[in-house]
Amino acid sequence: MDNKLFSRPLSLRDIRVTDDFWKNEMELVRTEVIPYQWEALNDRVEGAAPSYCMHNFRAAGKLNREKKAQGSAYVEPKYTFRGFEALPEDPAHPEEDKFYGFVFQDSDFSKWIEAVGYSLTQHPDPELEKIADGAIDIVCAAQQEDGYLDTYYIINGKDKIFSNLKDHHELYCFGHLTEGAVAYYQATGKEKLLKAAERFADYVADYFGTEPGKCKGYPGHEIAEMALVRLYEVTGNQKYLELGRYFVDERGTRPYYFDREHPDEVKKGREQELRYAYYQSHLPVRQQDEAVGHAVRAVYLYSGMADVARLYNDESLYHACRKLWDSIVREKMYITGGIGGTHIGESFSFPYDLPNDTAYAETCASIGLVFFARRMLEIAPDARYANVMERALYNGVLSGMALDGKSFFYVNPLEVLPEACHKDERKFHVKPVRQKWFGCACCPPNLARLVSSIGSYAFTENENTLFVHLYMGSKLEKQVNGRTVDVQIESGFPWNGDVQIKLRAKDTDFVLALRLPDWCGSYTLEGADGARTEEKDGYLYLRKEWAEEETICLHFPMEVRLMAADAAVREDAGKAAVTRGPIVYCLEEKDNGKDLHQLRINPELSAQEKPDTVCGVPVTAVEINGWRQTEKKQEKADGLYHPYVKPAKEAVRLHYVPYYTWANRGENEMQVWTSVD
Amino acid sequence: MDNKLFSRPLSLRDIRVTDDFWKNEMELVRTEVIPYQWEALNDRVEGAAPSYCMHNFRAAGKLNREKKAQGSAYVEPKYTFRGFEALPEDPAHPEEDKFYGFVFQDSDFSKWIEAVGYSLTQHPDPELEKIADGAIDIVCAAQQEDGYLDTYYIINGKDKIFSNLKDHHELYCFGHLTEGAVAYYQATGKEKLLKAAERFADYVADYFGTEPGKCKGYPGHEIAEMALVRLYEVTGNQKYLELGRYFVDERGTRPYYFDREHPDEVKKGREQELRYAYYQSHLPVRQQDEAVGHAVRAVYLYSGMADVARLYNDESLYHACRKLWDSIVREKMYITGGIGGTHIGESFSFPYDLPNDTAYAETCASIGLVFFARRMLEIAPDARYANVMERALYNGVLSGMALDGKSFFYVNPLEVLPEACHKDERKFHVKPVRQKWFGCACCPPNLARLVSSIGSYAFTENENTLFVHLYMGSKLEKQVNGRTVDVQIESGFPWNGDVQIKLRAKDTDFVLALRLPDWCGSYTLEGADGARTEEKDGYLYLRKEWAEEETICLHFPMEVRLMAADAAVREDAGKAAVTRGPIVYCLEEKDNGKDLHQLRINPELSAQEKPDTVCGVPVTAVEINGWRQTEKKQEKADGLYHPYVKPAKEAVRLHYVPYYTWANRGENEMQVWTSVD
Repeated sequence: MDNKLFSRPLSLRDIRVTDDFWKNEMELVRTEVIPYQWEALNDRVEGAAPSYCMHNFRAAGKLNREKKAQGSAYVEPKYTFRGFEALPEDPAHPEEDKFYGFVFQDSDFSKWIEAVGYSLTQHPDPELEKIADGAIDIVCAAQQEDGYLDTYYIINGKDKIFSNLKDHHELYCFGHLTEGAVAYYQATGKEKLLKAAERFADYVADYFGTEPGKCKGYPGHEIAEMALVRLYEVTGNQKYLELGRYFVDERGTRPYYFDREHPDEVKKGREQELRYAYYQSHLPVRQQDEAVGHAVRAVYLYSGMADVARLYNDESLYHACRKLWDSIVREKMYITGGIGGTHIGESFSFPYDLPNDTAYAETCASIGLVFFARRMLEIAPDARYANVMERALYNGVLSGMALDGKSFFYVNPLEVLPEACHKDERKFHVKPVRQKWFGCACCPPNLARLVSSIGSYAFTENENTLFVHLYMGSKLEKQVNGRTVDVQIESGFPWNGDVQIKLRAKDTDFVLALRLPDWCGSYTLEGADGARTEEKDGYLYLRKEWAEEETICLHFPMEVRLMAADAAVREDAGKAAVTRGPIVYCLEEKDNGKDLHQLRINPELSAQEKPDTVCGVPVTAVEINGWRQTEKKQEKADGLYHPYVKPAKEAVRLHYVPYYTWANRGENEMQVWTSVD
Repeated sequence: MDNKLFSRPLSLRDIRVTDDFWKNEMELVRTEVIPYQWEALNDRVEGAAPSYCMHNFRAAGKLNREKKAQGSAYVEPKYTFRGFEALPEDPAHPEEDKFYGFVFQDSDFSKWIEAVGYSLTQHPDPELEKIADGAIDIVCAAQQEDGYLDTYYIINGKDKIFSNLKDHHELYCFGHLTEGAVAYYQATGKEKLLKAAERFADYVADYFGTEPGKCKGYPGHEIAEMALVRLYEVTGNQKYLELGRYFVDERGTRPYYFDREHPDEVKKGREQELRYAYYQSHLPVRQQDEAVGHAVRAVYLYSGMADVARLYNDESLYHACRKLWDSIVREKMYITGGIGGTHIGESFSFPYDLPNDTAYAETCASIGLVFFARRMLEIAPDARYANVMERALYNGVLSGMALDGKSFFYVNPLEVLPEACHKDERKFHVKPVRQKWFGCACCPPNLARLVSSIGSYAFTENENTLFVHLYMGSKLEKQVNGRTVDVQIESGFPWNGDVQIKLRAKDTDFVLALRLPDWCGSYTLEGADGARTEEKDGYLYLRKEWAEEETICLHFPMEVRLMAADAAVREDAGKAAVTRGPIVYCLEEKDNGKDLHQLRINPELSAQEKPDTVCGVPVTAVEINGWRQTEKKQEKADGLYHPYVKPAKEAVRLHYVPYYTWANRGENEMQVWTSVD
């Protein structure tokens, strides 16, 4: 761990993303997702499960006002505890002072305001900002005198706060609120929500810790760890960083905090450990070396761990992060950057267990993997992280949203037979088409906040170096030696590997560090004449006496590549996937007919790239040689089984579309991994 | 439907099974399973979940005596209804007058006494018979004055009888009791239990039916249908046959009986139909053309339907049976004769959905398929039924029991990675080794009753014809034209296809009908010179003027065959299974090393049969040419995915053992379907 290598994301206010590809995604978020989400938060979407999110804030605010008006005569409302386990009720006219929905419903607002913040940096929008300010007023009105701010407990009884850290998502809501507040402050400079988050954080910091009299708990669903680091980075208040570290350090220590909280649920030894693996609290984090449990929780924790490791220069924690990273990337990640092999607990399965048709691969988990990757990059600029970040972004993350921004996947399988999704309960979690909205709405807003802040994943910087982790059209400014370096990038990604970088960096010792993607074996560089170049950890470092304006042209050849999985991945044995550049491809029934399992790849590919559109959106499709097995009907005879004969086959051209565009043309079969013959 | 083709099983008392293979299985049942089971019924097996079966009968008998002693002053014990859903309690000292265990615990006795009956016909055993008689005394002492006999309701309150036909297995227990009673009577001539069953049947017949005032219910778990037919066939009492027909005919009619029983659980339209598909009560039986729902329930129903169709010469019912048969055999049966593609509801999945590693394929379901097949054969001697019966018997049924008769599988997967069974909740139903005994003990006693009555599946007869459906060493007598025809069979099955049949049939118009197995394309016949031979529906019919003694030699070539599944079976695409004669083979880690998924079959088999032993039991093993994929470690690099190269492979000989012998040598990987290269 070498802190000279540390870097940090550029402020989004210093980046303007101009990229055709990403601009389009960001526009979808701005024009479709954010407005839709606001309607959803206010229960105004017909046919969608109500969120009750803003209702709950309003109800809590009303109680607050009544309390203040009545002074000490105020009596807490009747305690009507509704467990997380219960399904949210869906009343036509929710009662004014009751809480509805999941316990974590507050976080819907927080994710929304975070996306709004990022979006405003890229696309100022006074109308949206006004709505956001109004929403913040409602939220802040619910905050208690003491700083506490979670409507579930404000409404249902504050005597029960922090009594079920394991399952009630209170610190999760706190974390999201904090992230949203930081983002909105950074975008607009407005402090109101940030101050509210600080007051809540002060409350939490007073409540938790190792000091005598404090509660030694930690979140059941992680996120507060990285949120507190962000709050520290924007406020400079060391207390928040220390609280984040405390949550990381305390996790998984014995005796288990969750045991004390739920003595009735305590199991014996190994069984308890397995149970707590779901929460990544089975072991102290430094002893964890396998990514386990709920995948979103896991990568959120690991992101927080990486933040804390960097800020405390904590070698042992960084070491744990590296092991956990390797566990994911070497044993538990789909080729799409999807993680979470099983829907049971939305969790990682055991090493190399990566079923394609029953995958969970939650959109949020891939997003969390991007968070983790960026934080590892902040510690060490190593392309191993950026390569995975890119893989997840263009595939397992983007597949979560329809091309029109109007429907979403939670689950991102690599093989789908719609009949199975409808008839086989083991696959009911796999949807053959994207859904409008979810009662438990985590993925769409998570997508919104990631996409609208994509610039902060593409670039990090340290004193004099700009690290380009992702190639995308953008304009940005970086301060070096008291001067402003202007950088202007154009890129054909993800459809072609041409990158043009215009620099104005004269009289600075500006260093440009360019990621060399893992999907090409070579590259060409033009311009930057006379530069000292160095390749290190997958980055090309350019140093030189910069001229007034320089233009650097990079070319990363994007060839159609047939990829195989590690031989230990049973589900992919004998199969291959098609990739080109950062894009993973898939076969769809729409292009290739029914029964995709009867298709095979001819390794003499004769691959052809085809400019194409999916639902009007331009993409590069790929065609390769393949076979279709042709069944001889007469062999079927009386039963299912017949003597083996080499299956008759006819040559076909297989038409591949980018994985992230699948299921945009109606319900149909889809397949990433195909047998090679 | 041609009633001249009808046949019936020979009485077990007229058959003596002398076959090495089956005798061994029967001896396991006699010396291991039946005694163990008796101990289990009496809660005397250390470390096993108590059955409480005999306890419950004793408790009910005690109440009965008290009731009689007290006359009308008797007060029913306090009603302590314990739902089926609750786990059985496990008290060290069960209270004398309480019911323990599952609601269907009575049937443990019934299955045991049925197996005992069959066993006594093949191997008289006065000591066992004495124990059985004693058990019958205990059971009969629990019977109520009115004939009712189900300890769950006798103990917990008779006011609730038949109030939950859907889930409480009352008519299932009644059916098993009846089957056990018939078998024991046929074996020993002792009437006590048969009379008890008749009295209970009278009670049930008075209670259920379409007549005004009667309950229009039917069993939630079928078996009573076929049991009532057996009771009719042994008593000649038409009432029982009519009751059986009533249960068949009433099933699935609208309005749903189960809706009336559980009005609170009623769902809307399609959803309700799907729910009731589990019970095969979603439609009237004649409208059912797809095998659905709980697989054991399904084949028990279909067996009863076939019985009723035959006895009433009911063409439309027979037609439904044929469609359901085809649905199973053409779309829903594993190559092992296993049925039930999903553990959710232990049910059939949708057509062609036959996953190998998450299969349910319950032993009892394959046993039920054998029941169904035999009953279809009784209607029409068509080898399509006998071929499946043989397939199920030698593979999916026998795999349920360890070679030492001491442990059992419920679930019979076709592919097992022990790690997945331990770590992947989706596969927790799959056990990598057989278990000692089960709280819900259906499979071991079901195996016991099938194996010990195997003779009644091998042969059926009509007036002058003996149908040989299965080849096994045996001696049997058949009456033709008032004379006794002696038949003596020797067979090398399942290891070689030599069959020798010695006949003494002089002066009769005896016809011998010999099944021609589907696994050989030809056969040779010696002897029976001058016979008129005819091949029809997979049987060879021999008619002639029989000499005093004749010897017929048949040879069915048993070649190693590579089998493929229908192209619609996605899980088996590109794969093949090895069979030889009736035996399906599998690869085990023990013989072939770890990572069976990295093995491939070389279609140039060079197959070799190898006399072998598994745990001391002689079998014919098979070796064929194959490949092992050898991974190049350096390609693993940093992640799971690397450019596809044709996998390096080394030639290996693949060692196959019979599927039914798997997991007898400890926990290890197993695989039936292997890719062909």
